[in-house]
Amino acid sequence: MAAGRTAPILSGLRIIELSAFVAAPLGGATLAALGADVIRVDPLGGGVDIGRWPLHQGRSLYWAGLNQGKRSVTIDTRSEAGRRQVAGLIAAPGVGGGIVLTNLPVKGWNSYAELSNLRPDLIMVVITGDRDGGTAVDYTVNAALGFPWLTGPEGHEAPVNHVLPAWDGMTGFLAALAILVAERHRRLTGEGQLVELSLADVGLAMAGHLGLIGEAVLDPEPRGRFGNDVYGTLGRDFGTCDGRRVMVLALTARQWLSLGEATGLSGDFTELESRVGADFLQEGDRWRHREAVCALLGPWIAQRGLAEVRRIFGRHNVLCGPYQTVKQLVAEDPRASTANPMFSELDHPGLGRFLTAGSPLRFGAAAPVPPRPAPALGQHTAEVLREFGLET
Amino acid sequence: MAAGRTAPILSGLRIIELSAFVAAPLGGATLAALGADVIRVDPLGGGVDIGRWPLHQGRSLYWAGLNQGKRSVTIDTRSEAGRRQVAGLIAAPGVGGGIVLTNLPVKGWNSYAELSNLRPDLIMVVITGDRDGGTAVDYTVNAALGFPWLTGPEGHEAPVNHVLPAWDGMTGFLAALAILVAERHRRLTGEGQLVELSLADVGLAMAGHLGLIGEAVLDPEPRGRFGNDVYGTLGRDFGTCDGRRVMVLALTARQWLSLGEATGLSGDFTELESRVGADFLQEGDRWRHREAVCALLGPWIAQRGLAEVRRIFGRHNVLCGPYQTVKQLVAEDPRASTANPMFSELDHPGLGRFLTAGSPLRFGAAAPVPPRPAPALGQHTAEVLREFGLET
Repeated sequence: MAAGRTAPILSGLRIIELSAFVAAPLGGATLAALGADVIRVDPLGGGVDIGRWPLHQGRSLYWAGLNQGKRSVTIDTRSEAGRRQVAGLIAAPGVGGGIVLTNLPVKGWNSYAELSNLRPDLIMVVITGDRDGGTAVDYTVNAALGFPWLTGPEGHEAPVNHVLPAWDGMTGFLAALAILVAERHRRLTGEGQLVELSLADVGLAMAGHLGLIGEAVLDPEPRGRFGNDVYGTLGRDFGTCDGRRVMVLALTARQWLSLGEATGLSGDFTELESRVGADFLQEGDRWRHREAVCALLGPWIAQRGLAEVRRIFGRHNVLCGPYQTVKQLVAEDPRASTANPMFSELDHPGLGRFLTAGSPLRFGAAAPVPPRPAPALGQHTAEVLREFGLET
Repeated sequence: MAAGRTAPILSGLRIIELSAFVAAPLGGATLAALGADVIRVDPLGGGVDIGRWPLHQGRSLYWAGLNQGKRSVTIDTRSEAGRRQVAGLIAAPGVGGGIVLTNLPVKGWNSYAELSNLRPDLIMVVITGDRDGGTAVDYTVNAALGFPWLTGPEGHEAPVNHVLPAWDGMTGFLAALAILVAERHRRLTGEGQLVELSLADVGLAMAGHLGLIGEAVLDPEPRGRFGNDVYGTLGRDFGTCDGRRVMVLALTARQWLSLGEATGLSGDFTELESRVGADFLQEGDRWRHREAVCALLGPWIAQRGLAEVRRIFGRHNVLCGPYQTVKQLVAEDPRASTANPMFSELDHPGLGRFLTAGSPLRFGAAAPVPPRPAPALGQHTAEVLREFGLET
């Protein structure tokens, strides 16, 4: 379908990014990976995230990952001339331009009110921590939402933080969505706008979508902490005889039947059902009797190696997947290799060569954008200022 | 700015959703919360997620949360007539229509190839587990990516699953983005397309953006598990004298200085710096010496109650936030109350009244859409079939 199509799906769109850490940079990288011209503007020497861990040979792998495919411009915004240059980039004419994405403080010169004087159809997407502009980051939002008390080993007495900054990720993707929605509105009406979102609101809305807020309001009993069990159904981790672990689930009636067929435990499961008066085609019953079910399932898995478990489960369409360390992921999993067309081996200047992903979105009507490394800090300063006619 | 504007930002957009569980329903709910007409089509009696936990009085709070603001149609797609009706909904004329979002198996009658015969400019966004269509869900993807070995108490010997289905969330938001990107392309060129994404690819791309894949390839040492510490900087949880816990971070040099000022520990921190030869303005040094830093900070926090810690830290702009259970969140946190304009108290038929979020995205040039409950299953079947001229 993409034959002969060479333009990436977002070619023609240009975003000026004033950002740090995860959410805004991820939003920008997401659009850059679809072909938008994303220009990240940093202070001379880089922003607060220029050295963020993980590092390799003193350079930030994190910065390299979150700024893939962008152009990098450094400008001293403490000077009036520098501020004029940034404003000039943001307000430059062009139908796909006039879009700014930021998670840095905006006030005065870089506020929507000021910048939209220069370009009335400006689109500005501003990410804050709290809705009122208060400081909050992924880790404080997560602490507030209750997930750390639900996550981790049953009986553990402390909260368990996530390592994946999930709220940053979701906020970044929503910020990218916000840009497309606002650009649609501008095409239809000619009108620009300020769009605001906060990490905290994204987290709160998600807690609502998952039913956690309704549950906390309506249910007198607080939700418990259930270790690695997936709440309300059958799903947990099991050990294999070769020291590996595997996640096994039966979310649907069909998956439950498959599990019995694959293991030959259907009879034992049926016997258990009649003994306890349960119907394991109902997820609630699988959940209530999960210990008894896992007492049958666990030993079957524990007698086998990971490869055998996967072979048998794969043949019967049992829903399962191995636990892997990140090292095992890149060493063993074909999904994390160039066998997956999303990935290329790429040289990252100053870091080395490693497996690098393009966009996970595959548009049938457009050419994919090959993965690109992050720019060196300031690499495109002269080029961009010249292009925009903003040399001093 | 929104004065007088009554049309929601996505009015005119219509999406037919064939879905279950989280990713596609969340993508649909995200667009519905911005005013799109999202019609979820289910089999008679509901899809596999109709009874998904958490439940209240036997009804799914999860389904209610993930289908907010949609219309619900039930059709028996095992019958030829039912399939024709669904195809008719999808392929109906109209400039904002002809968009389908699904995470169910597509083949034969509901494939892009078939449906685009009926409407050549069809946009179809298909979410799969693995890229090749193989079955994978949030929990197996997370197990594969390595996060469960990085999450949880230091020294814990098993993987720790997340409770938040973060990959589902990110995939749902990216699917919403994909619809907007494809609809932009259709406006510019008249051309529809198939867009595909998988939970696994979303997770892999995110692991790349965060530097984890580069680190695993380049660094001979695997990343360790560091409990509640935020890797490579200063950030962890502390207990207060009233039995609460608080997340405290110093991600930037400014935040580090604030922490010393707020606690009066600047002198002790400086003394520690000279004793160990460190510069705590550098995040790497804060990380390497975190135990010694926390040995100073921990007792200061442990002598105070949560309210006092928050008051003092708030005055000095120290980055911190309390841990809350979900019950504490809805009882104590003004962000999770109608003091936050994102929320309304809403009646959910069959469930009760509870705090319900609208979109976390605030568009300055459009009216916000007040939060709406999920429909009853099949509530709009007759209405929608009549509207589309598809009564049998």
